[in-house]
Amino acid sequence: MTNLQKIDQFLEDNLDKSIAELSNLVAQPSVGAQNWGMQECAALTAAMLAERGFKVEIMPTDGAPVVFGERKGRSDKTLLFYNHYDVQPPEPLELWETPPFEPSLREGKLYGRGVSDDKSHITSRLFAIDALLDADGELPCNVKFIIEGEEETGSIHLPQLIRENKQKFAADACVWEFGGVDHREIPMQYLGLRGICYVELSVETASIDVHSGLGGSIFPNAAWRLIWALSTLKGPDERIRIPGWYDDIIPPTARDRELMAAQPDPAEEYKSRYGVKNFLNGLTGGVELAMTEVFEPTCTICGLTSGYQGPGSKTVLPAQASAKIDFRIVQGQTTEKCLSLLRQHLDAEGFSDVQMTFLGGGPAAKTDPDDPFIKLVVDSAEEIYESKMEMIPMIGGSGPSYPFVHDLGLPVATAGLGYADTRAHAPNENIRLDLYLKHARHMARVLVLFSK
Amino acid sequence: MTNLQKIDQFLEDNLDKSIAELSNLVAQPSVGAQNWGMQECAALTAAMLAERGFKVEIMPTDGAPVVFGERKGRSDKTLLFYNHYDVQPPEPLELWETPPFEPSLREGKLYGRGVSDDKSHITSRLFAIDALLDADGELPCNVKFIIEGEEETGSIHLPQLIRENKQKFAADACVWEFGGVDHREIPMQYLGLRGICYVELSVETASIDVHSGLGGSIFPNAAWRLIWALSTLKGPDERIRIPGWYDDIIPPTARDRELMAAQPDPAEEYKSRYGVKNFLNGLTGGVELAMTEVFEPTCTICGLTSGYQGPGSKTVLPAQASAKIDFRIVQGQTTEKCLSLLRQHLDAEGFSDVQMTFLGGGPAAKTDPDDPFIKLVVDSAEEIYESKMEMIPMIGGSGPSYPFVHDLGLPVATAGLGYADTRAHAPNENIRLDLYLKHARHMARVLVLFSK
Repeated sequence: MTNLQKIDQFLEDNLDKSIAELSNLVAQPSVGAQNWGMQECAALTAAMLAERGFKVEIMPTDGAPVVFGERKGRSDKTLLFYNHYDVQPPEPLELWETPPFEPSLREGKLYGRGVSDDKSHITSRLFAIDALLDADGELPCNVKFIIEGEEETGSIHLPQLIRENKQKFAADACVWEFGGVDHREIPMQYLGLRGICYVELSVETASIDVHSGLGGSIFPNAAWRLIWALSTLKGPDERIRIPGWYDDIIPPTARDRELMAAQPDPAEEYKSRYGVKNFLNGLTGGVELAMTEVFEPTCTICGLTSGYQGPGSKTVLPAQASAKIDFRIVQGQTTEKCLSLLRQHLDAEGFSDVQMTFLGGGPAAKTDPDDPFIKLVVDSAEEIYESKMEMIPMIGGSGPSYPFVHDLGLPVATAGLGYADTRAHAPNENIRLDLYLKHARHMARVLVLFSK
Repeated sequence: MTNLQKIDQFLEDNLDKSIAELSNLVAQPSVGAQNWGMQECAALTAAMLAERGFKVEIMPTDGAPVVFGERKGRSDKTLLFYNHYDVQPPEPLELWETPPFEPSLREGKLYGRGVSDDKSHITSRLFAIDALLDADGELPCNVKFIIEGEEETGSIHLPQLIRENKQKFAADACVWEFGGVDHREIPMQYLGLRGICYVELSVETASIDVHSGLGGSIFPNAAWRLIWALSTLKGPDERIRIPGWYDDIIPPTARDRELMAAQPDPAEEYKSRYGVKNFLNGLTGGVELAMTEVFEPTCTICGLTSGYQGPGSKTVLPAQASAKIDFRIVQGQTTEKCLSLLRQHLDAEGFSDVQMTFLGGGPAAKTDPDDPFIKLVVDSAEEIYESKMEMIPMIGGSGPSYPFVHDLGLPVATAGLGYADTRAHAPNENIRLDLYLKHARHMARVLVLFSK
């Protein structure tokens, strides 16, 4: 029996035990937004690493602690796993078929809050490590885990912690917290995350709301000030009108385009799922739609608030108005410069009265599709999934990959056990046990091949 | 003892009895917005008219009924009183010093929901009628009362009822439901009400909200559609940009300006009360501020709603957005034409996707300051208030005076017992008993002088 056969046999034989460990982890609530069980879950996660002989540190932050674990292996190379132990709030509770913190196994799936995002990714990777230790008595390479507790609330303290601990976190490559197969059961390799700069713009024009019969023609109106300010940011041509906004952008490469062109056209699925009749700027689908979706900077109004919002009419002139705006930023752009350009633009347009509050964000980050580590992860999937991974050079969402890419200088590969009906962030979140086993087998192979 | 002396004596001697009747009326809740006690209050109001020998009709509408009463008098002339028996909701209850529907007499003031707006105006006018009947055994002229039950919810059915019953409601002059003294204790004669055209604009771009990481650069955003549509309605110069909006406007007269110029400058009071630093378009105060306040059409955003409005950030692309807009309209403008111009404008600007819902309104109405009936009401106040009434040609607010002015062709005079701290629509609404007595004395004189 080869080493890999031994590993696969171990994983097959011990799946129940790993799922029991996962169930135990899911049963420990760790809802960051509600500050519920965070210290307890950090301690439990740390203990799971320590059990495997990891040197473990619970690193405090101004928010939830980061669990860091390190175990030496045979080769000098170091693989870093990024995971998180925090979960989304379980509400609405009435839509769960079984209670969110009482993991339930039904028809080959395990249900519970955080089971997919991200606790199964922690335990399945530990499961792979168990198999390697069982087969060999030691790890093929050095392994580090950064398991944070604020991913669902914006990873507010992680980038700073990474910048301050570059030596401790140093590695040669990183496996990201998520990944999985798409609706065709093809394993996907997501190579980049767009950046984000989320701001709230607000205006106050008076100390109290005024009767609109009185003030309409003589008092400034906070809602109008906001509308006019917003209308200078972007027009119906969808081009962001803030001077300098596009100056530093690094455009996508021919390789990015080639990878996007290889993907199925998302147009019909988007139309039917979201009830959208047409896409912006005359886009109809195909690679142009896909490229625009992820490689263009955006200025999305996520929310508007002012004055009376109940049924019928109320004659009030609002003293306050605010908008939440999600600027997705792309390669080359930074939150710092974007915030500064936005402020300068508002001032130049006569909107010094519009207050700006930064609500979080960070730059885009992207790993080269032709990096050898990516090739290793992509190719090693084939034996398990009966398909190589397909590579997506960039996704539209954002996440804290930039300090790993920019500060630690790592290629970041995605791999995991998500699938079309995994319901992360929603009621009845679940994982499929077959994908759990596959991910563990995949990770064991990645560790073995990487060490060479 | 002259007739007027007899009348004054009667009013002085019977004040307690009239206040008891008012208390009884206030104790009957009649909250239109909550459909609470409307039929009961209509019946009670009708009974109060019937007691005075009025022929009474409770006229059904599709909303709350209108109480109509008529009693013949000595002369052929007819005076019509417009009042309403409905009141504002009493909330927030915790701010009332005594329960809103348990009238409480303290330091010469009677407290209770609706005591000022508008129930004391009903009973004080009936009190004047009691005095006239006591002095003379009959009324000096015909008297009609229209007492509606939907004033606080927009008088939705009254204009139609008036148009359909012109003969029944025919009169020679009308006394309005409100009036009073200003902060200097000068009785005020408000001669006009601005019109209003209240609409909701709404946009729907998808069937559900979309993750903003996905949709930001390819999906239409309801909030942006709304912002762009709104920004075409009015710019920072405050000029309404809808073509034709100003075409039919009848400008204020030299007499209007003369009357406005005679009033104290409101600038400082507005600034301190509302915490406003500057007025629009460089206005600083005086007659220009006062004229702009009431004679200019307005386009006021009263409310904005879209997407996420909670604390912090949520990355959502809203499928829906809406705005409530209060267009105040002036002499010459009609709601019908304004709605049509607005729709045409939105379509022409490319916003056929913006839906428009009319939430109510009606045109402006204005009574000639030199109408003989106005002179009578103004002059007859002097003996009681130690000052003639001061005339305001137009106020910025709106109300259902237009069917009285335009359909019944009546001069409409305001007179009443409001005062600076009367707190209509607010907790601890109250009236002063001295002003109650004065208003009854004033109304008795108006009826006597009008009949001649």
